[in-house]
Amino acid sequence: MTVARGGRLKNDPSAAMQALNTSVDVDQRLWREDIRGSIAHAQGLARAGVISKEDAVTLERGLKQVASEIEQGTFAWDASKEDVHMNIEARLTEIVGAVGGKLHTGRSRNDQVATDLRLWVRAEATSVLQEIQNLAQAIVARAQGEIETLMPAYTHLQRAQPSRLSHHLLAWQELLFRDHQRLLDALVRLNECPLGSGAVAGTGFPLDRVAVAKDLGFTGPTRNSIDATGSRDFLMEVAASLAILGVHLSRIGEELVIWSSLEFGFVALSDQYSTSSSMMPQKKNPDVAELIRGKAARAIGDLTSLLVLEKSLAFGYGRELQEDKVPIFSLIDGALVSLRALAGAIATLTFNADKMRAALNQGHLCATDLADFLVRKGMPFRQAHHLVGELVRAAESKGVQLHELDDATLSAASVLLSDARSSGAFDPALAVERRDLFGGPARKQVLLQIDDALKRWKENAVLVKSKLGAG
Amino acid sequence: MTVARGGRLKNDPSAAMQALNTSVDVDQRLWREDIRGSIAHAQGLARAGVISKEDAVTLERGLKQVASEIEQGTFAWDASKEDVHMNIEARLTEIVGAVGGKLHTGRSRNDQVATDLRLWVRAEATSVLQEIQNLAQAIVARAQGEIETLMPAYTHLQRAQPSRLSHHLLAWQELLFRDHQRLLDALVRLNECPLGSGAVAGTGFPLDRVAVAKDLGFTGPTRNSIDATGSRDFLMEVAASLAILGVHLSRIGEELVIWSSLEFGFVALSDQYSTSSSMMPQKKNPDVAELIRGKAARAIGDLTSLLVLEKSLAFGYGRELQEDKVPIFSLIDGALVSLRALAGAIATLTFNADKMRAALNQGHLCATDLADFLVRKGMPFRQAHHLVGELVRAAESKGVQLHELDDATLSAASVLLSDARSSGAFDPALAVERRDLFGGPARKQVLLQIDDALKRWKENAVLVKSKLGAG
Amino acid sequence: MTVARGGRLKNDPSAAMQALNTSVDVDQRLWREDIRGSIAHAQGLARAGVISKEDAVTLERGLKQVASEIEQGTFAWDASKEDVHMNIEARLTEIVGAVGGKLHTGRSRNDQVATDLRLWVRAEATSVLQEIQNLAQAIVARAQGEIETLMPAYTHLQRAQPSRLSHHLLAWQELLFRDHQRLLDALVRLNECPLGSGAVAGTGFPLDRVAVAKDLGFTGPTRNSIDATGSRDFLMEVAASLAILGVHLSRIGEELVIWSSLEFGFVALSDQYSTSSSMMPQKKNPDVAELIRGKAARAIGDLTSLLVLEKSLAFGYGRELQEDKVPIFSLIDGALVSLRALAGAIATLTFNADKMRAALNQGHLCATDLADFLVRKGMPFRQAHHLVGELVRAAESKGVQLHELDDATLSAASVLLSDARSSGAFDPALAVERRDLFGGPARKQVLLQIDDALKRWKENAVLVKSKLGAG
Amino acid sequence: MTVARGGRLKNDPSAAMQALNTSVDVDQRLWREDIRGSIAHAQGLARAGVISKEDAVTLERGLKQVASEIEQGTFAWDASKEDVHMNIEARLTEIVGAVGGKLHTGRSRNDQVATDLRLWVRAEATSVLQEIQNLAQAIVARAQGEIETLMPAYTHLQRAQPSRLSHHLLAWQELLFRDHQRLLDALVRLNECPLGSGAVAGTGFPLDRVAVAKDLGFTGPTRNSIDATGSRDFLMEVAASLAILGVHLSRIGEELVIWSSLEFGFVALSDQYSTSSSMMPQKKNPDVAELIRGKAARAIGDLTSLLVLEKSLAFGYGRELQEDKVPIFSLIDGALVSLRALAGAIATLTFNADKMRAALNQGHLCATDLADFLVRKGMPFRQAHHLVGELVRAAESKGVQLHELDDATLSAASVLLSDARSSGAFDPALAVERRDLFGGPARKQVLLQIDDALKRWKENAVLVKSKLGAG
Repeated sequence: MTVARGGRLKNDPSAAMQALNTSVDVDQRLWREDIRGSIAHAQGLARAGVISKEDAVTLERGLKQVASEIEQGTFAWDASKEDVHMNIEARLTEIVGAVGGKLHTGRSRNDQVATDLRLWVRAEATSVLQEIQNLAQAIVARAQGEIETLMPAYTHLQRAQPSRLSHHLLAWQELLFRDHQRLLDALVRLNECPLGSGAVAGTGFPLDRVAVAKDLGFTGPTRNSIDATGSRDFLMEVAASLAILGVHLSRIGEELVIWSSLEFGFVALSDQYSTSSSMMPQKKNPDVAELIRGKAARAIGDLTSLLVLEKSLAFGYGRELQEDKVPIFSLIDGALVSLRALAGAIATLTFNADKMRAALNQGHLCATDLADFLVRKGMPFRQAHHLVGELVRAAESKGVQLHELDDATLSAASVLLSDARSSGAFDPALAVERRDLFGGPARKQVLLQIDDALKRWKENAVLVKSKLGAG
Repeated sequence: MTVARGGRLKNDPSAAMQALNTSVDVDQRLWREDIRGSIAHAQGLARAGVISKEDAVTLERGLKQVASEIEQGTFAWDASKEDVHMNIEARLTEIVGAVGGKLHTGRSRNDQVATDLRLWVRAEATSVLQEIQNLAQAIVARAQGEIETLMPAYTHLQRAQPSRLSHHLLAWQELLFRDHQRLLDALVRLNECPLGSGAVAGTGFPLDRVAVAKDLGFTGPTRNSIDATGSRDFLMEVAASLAILGVHLSRIGEELVIWSSLEFGFVALSDQYSTSSSMMPQKKNPDVAELIRGKAARAIGDLTSLLVLEKSLAFGYGRELQEDKVPIFSLIDGALVSLRALAGAIATLTFNADKMRAALNQGHLCATDLADFLVRKGMPFRQAHHLVGELVRAAESKGVQLHELDDATLSAASVLLSDARSSGAFDPALAVERRDLFGGPARKQVLLQIDDALKRWKENAVLVKSKLGAG
Repeated sequence: MTVARGGRLKNDPSAAMQALNTSVDVDQRLWREDIRGSIAHAQGLARAGVISKEDAVTLERGLKQVASEIEQGTFAWDASKEDVHMNIEARLTEIVGAVGGKLHTGRSRNDQVATDLRLWVRAEATSVLQEIQNLAQAIVARAQGEIETLMPAYTHLQRAQPSRLSHHLLAWQELLFRDHQRLLDALVRLNECPLGSGAVAGTGFPLDRVAVAKDLGFTGPTRNSIDATGSRDFLMEVAASLAILGVHLSRIGEELVIWSSLEFGFVALSDQYSTSSSMMPQKKNPDVAELIRGKAARAIGDLTSLLVLEKSLAFGYGRELQEDKVPIFSLIDGALVSLRALAGAIATLTFNADKMRAALNQGHLCATDLADFLVRKGMPFRQAHHLVGELVRAAESKGVQLHELDDATLSAASVLLSDARSSGAFDPALAVERRDLFGGPARKQVLLQIDDALKRWKENAVLVKSKLGAG
Repeated sequence: MTVARGGRLKNDPSAAMQALNTSVDVDQRLWREDIRGSIAHAQGLARAGVISKEDAVTLERGLKQVASEIEQGTFAWDASKEDVHMNIEARLTEIVGAVGGKLHTGRSRNDQVATDLRLWVRAEATSVLQEIQNLAQAIVARAQGEIETLMPAYTHLQRAQPSRLSHHLLAWQELLFRDHQRLLDALVRLNECPLGSGAVAGTGFPLDRVAVAKDLGFTGPTRNSIDATGSRDFLMEVAASLAILGVHLSRIGEELVIWSSLEFGFVALSDQYSTSSSMMPQKKNPDVAELIRGKAARAIGDLTSLLVLEKSLAFGYGRELQEDKVPIFSLIDGALVSLRALAGAIATLTFNADKMRAALNQGHLCATDLADFLVRKGMPFRQAHHLVGELVRAAESKGVQLHELDDATLSAASVLLSDARSSGAFDPALAVERRDLFGGPARKQVLLQIDDALKRWKENAVLVKSKLGAG
């Protein structure tokens, strides 16, 4: 029977109830934050004159001993003590005696766990921010190295227009840039301290919430005790950011799977990031990309869990909120492991520039440029589009490519086309350089974008520090 | 480096890749099924003449030793061996020597894990079926005991019409009856054996798939090797059944939370199924119901994960499928722990019949019966509805209940109402008995429904055995 | 002000309330079922002696006139009358006078809409069953036609083992077979009639619920009035079936997108099922497959909506349930339009058998068969797997395929390999035929599976009729 | 056959394909944005010298006529023209002749629809921001008016501690404050212009993307053409913000439903925001709150749809993205209608202060304060908690409240309690004022929070203007 339970309830929980009720196997992961928060609370109680300075010192000493026992693996977690909080308080009281019973003055598990969770998410999500940046920088580095590699841009997985690999890689980087901003916005919003909110309506003890918040690296205390103990939109928002990040990593993964196929053959993963088959000796599989897609699927499910969990809660705290931990732990773990593996895979894979370049020669990729060529000669685009479409159909029926049509056929379609070939309308490399506008694939533009990306990531790193502080 | 990896790939996976790739911490839970499946496969190989009878005996002996080591906790799980399958095969080979390398003949991890998962889900979901039945029977038992307890039926959480508690409890039971059928349908559909499907295209060895399927308690082998190794709709369907079950348990939980409030006061949970507060000494909380709602939220998220996971997979097997295990394990665990706790909570709670009965006296609950009274006298229902609505508004403005309006007021509204009171139109107990049609709350109907429910659950238990067999 | 509202509430709803409250723009789609249910109810009231036979005839006549007006587009839907039910009742009363006010005797919108929805879903989902069958039969027809077409089986989008196109197509068909069963199970479960359940607690009028249920083609009445009016698991289950179907169609779509790429080139969609680009004149895009994937994404979201909607409802009916219509309509519409387009696309596309066959020559596809060859000579599989893995690595480093290694290299690796080539271990066509076990890709097995599939679909069509009746 | 289709593809789409493919019934809602974007593009083409100034003027005139026709309802939408873009371009060309064919120069539907969507979402979500603020201000106004109303704070729907209504209302307001910030962050992030990105790889025409972006009220052009046409995280993020908002509105709705129950009786909705029953004449239902909860369920589903939609897309644009419109339209509509109705309902409902105040007298609400009283006398909190817990159990067994225990019983439990009553430990009003710390329910703190809230909302309104500009 827990110390909280004993006074009011006659019986221990039944076995079935305990199996449902206990959470220590999951929430013990918060032990560092729990002890850090408790030390700050003890010091706050002393500052407020609620307990003596000596008691605070004793509590801090005891809590540090608990921390050391957990770290060394000698701490005996006990499911019958329900959760990480009661386990630690019980051991603390064994160590320091009755004074341990003073720690929970002016506090409830409701504000305690809200504080622990914010501390934990802030720290872990800051690591996610760092890993997003690492991945982005790995991508930008590859973009720098592949500046000369031309390839088709695709839509609908069909070759669309001539482009360059670096431009494609920078598209990935753009996703990550917004993911970084989005998660940072979420962390700035969560960076407030619930301690002092008690169970739901604060406490009668004159705690200095501003000081305790500062001790724990928060920008300040939360503004309403009912909200602070009963709301988890900080989790929903972080979860949404991570689910969107997951979607983005999954998209990159989708492309790596496709590009690794023998049919595309655009990339070869390094052996260190490849897997084999238990049955088929020849297999070298892009499981790294598939697992990242799988993690993203789970991220979407975890976000769903968190949204549904909170949807029907009346205020204040309801015990449903206990179930927020598995999803947020899973989201963070999934993001970290995916980001690290993907960064490694991208840094070590080989691009097959020849196959990419060769892909420009099939698929009538210069059709748009040919239509644009006609536009420059005065033909309305829609008419030019139609005319070139018919030429493509003619080429298909002859089994040739648009650029392989003979000049007679071209001229027959329109006299304006007589100098199309000589004007470079069919040259994919020229076509790429022609796309020399902001955000386009021309060499100059891509180099500018690389410089811009490097600069923005450098600024981002500064931003994290200035917005979240030391934590 | 795993045995599967060694021939084809030069390097070990990087640390980041291994962190993403390894699954043994999760899938070791399938060890019993993995060993059971491997024994059946070894016997099948011998029957097909692919290995000798002696080799099969050796493999079975070795596998049983592995099982015994795992059971006794002496087995050393090794994350670098990727998964439960490779861990077991590696230890088997340590025990029995090179013959261990024959076990995987004509098999891939792809058909192996599909078989393990079906065996595991079949067994665990059969336990869920049993717990659904246990909960339903606990509810029916309470319905029998509370046959005399009248209470309002609610809509929109507003008192609606006079009814009886047993009728309400039987509504819960109906949900569970369909949940049971639905899950059983899913299990019947999954009860086919993938072994022999190999990695994707079967195997060149002449395995007797029918016999192996029978050995493992399946109704037969799956029909297409690509489908068998690459599809997980059996998981999606079981997950959907469990998510719907979760929604239903959550609804019961919602009512228990509301009924446990001091304001309603309809039920008092036993101390064994109540919890207390770390801060507020008086608290006795219905966390059992809230936790069940929380588990249901996670069930919806886990279902989402499984659907999303499989949505974009090309055939055959893709490694995303590794991520199916955490969600399905979580769904099954959540269902079992919820069902058991809820059955105990319902069996031990106290209904406050007096408070329920008293609730019939407020809320103008006989308004429908008064309108029906007018209908019986020939007034079209819509007109009667309007007339009674105005009477209720009048009663509200006088601060009285509809049945407290004096006869003069009633008669003034309609002469047809002059004998309404004497005819029992205002008596809630009569109103309940008047609802004496199939599926209604009259005593006779509810007793019939109780008998019917008991009979149907008895049939269900037989059905499970006949449809799933010994497993 | 609606007729229902008038007696009790003083004011009309505010504009903001009405904008939230009205549903007629959505639920008018149920008008046929609403009128059909009302006619059955009117006849039931007359049979029970609650209204006269003449009144029933009048009501039926009036309702048929309403139906005719709606069909002809002359019916004036009025948002201020809230929903389809009140719109129809109001117009009915205009047509037949005060007797129209008798129709709602012993009925509530709560059992009315539950009945309408079940009728509507039963009819529409039966169409889905038919379209699933049509698609499956289109697939089986292609499997018959392509029985000689060999292709690689893939895992992880890497070529895995030699297989045949028909075998792959039959995998698609297996998915659809289970989808059909699953949806049929759901429809059998929903096929009960809520009418007579009233608002929540039945009615005091002695309705013959069994007869009305029969009139409406249901197997019988629902068993509990609270459950019948307050539960929508029939929607959740149908939605889950359709979401899983969506996942499956999406998987087929994923493959069509990949196979349509120039790199794979395995299929060419017909022009009738292709789309073009507004900018790029050469484009012929597989939008059909992408749109089907998009519909599947929405199906998962719609299922989520329905689960979340009901999760936190206390009994009985809550108005949240109004929001069940958009998702279920969207699910059914999405399924029908997807199934029809996919069936057409598959029936009219061209398979490029040459490209598929050619794909067998690259990717070391005979590696498994070579290892199996060694197994047949007595080498344990795991050792054979390792040896062949090394040979593949050697071939890769020489830039050749496994089957292109010279005999000396093979023999050096193992003397057992000296007759590998002459024994056909490298021949992909032989490799396919070697997989001659149940569920495998050998010609004989696939032909058996085609026969079996045709037989099962024929049985399925019979099953639908026998289980759902005339509806 | 559309103009885009005609050149390349021989046949019209089949009926089944057209049913799947057409989107004009949904996306016609974007017509204003489409025309606005087209005018800006035409002007941009002229500025870049790609078309003449005269052509630009002609195009603008034509587009304005199209707008006027749509506004007046005379525009004939044609499903065979696929979408809003082709419908408008086709009509434009009818009006202005061949010059209409010049509009699409250097543009694709891919950058066009991305621009339209951003414009639409920016405008509509800005309305959502305004409605969030309106609702929050309605809540703060009620908090000001109810500053003297005391009530219990609840946890687990059990009375927890004495608090005040204004404090509870301010908790609602805090949720909305973060919702406002979160959505604004999303809009700032989406406020970039895709025009000039073409189909995927930009265009060869020298468009001045910065100028066009400015014309359309964007902060600048998007940075990468592949990303700009193929990404929709701006939708996912807005959707996540709206789903979280929905969760919050649903929580408020949950409380309104419970508080409107006869048992709680804390609030009475105005008739304008109440609904009635078709069967039960007495009913006055809180459907407003239930419908808002229902909309929130759909919001979660719509978010899921958007996440799943984009999860498996390879770059660039895939047609799945067409399916993003229904979910985002539904999310925005649901948010607007919910916010407006809830603001009205809250502004017009009646709080029953007497019932709230009376609720303080039951539930042993002063237990925490009694424990704190002991702490102030030197007893460690955990010991005090246990002692008071036992007193509560004793009170329960006597059928009295904690504050009704006689002094002898109190003193027997602990001599420290002899002056508990005289010291005000049992007075709920004193207990509220004792919670006089930042974020607590004491009168002074709540008044400060009200001032702070008013100030912050004023700042927010300024922030919206400064961050989003004129749009």
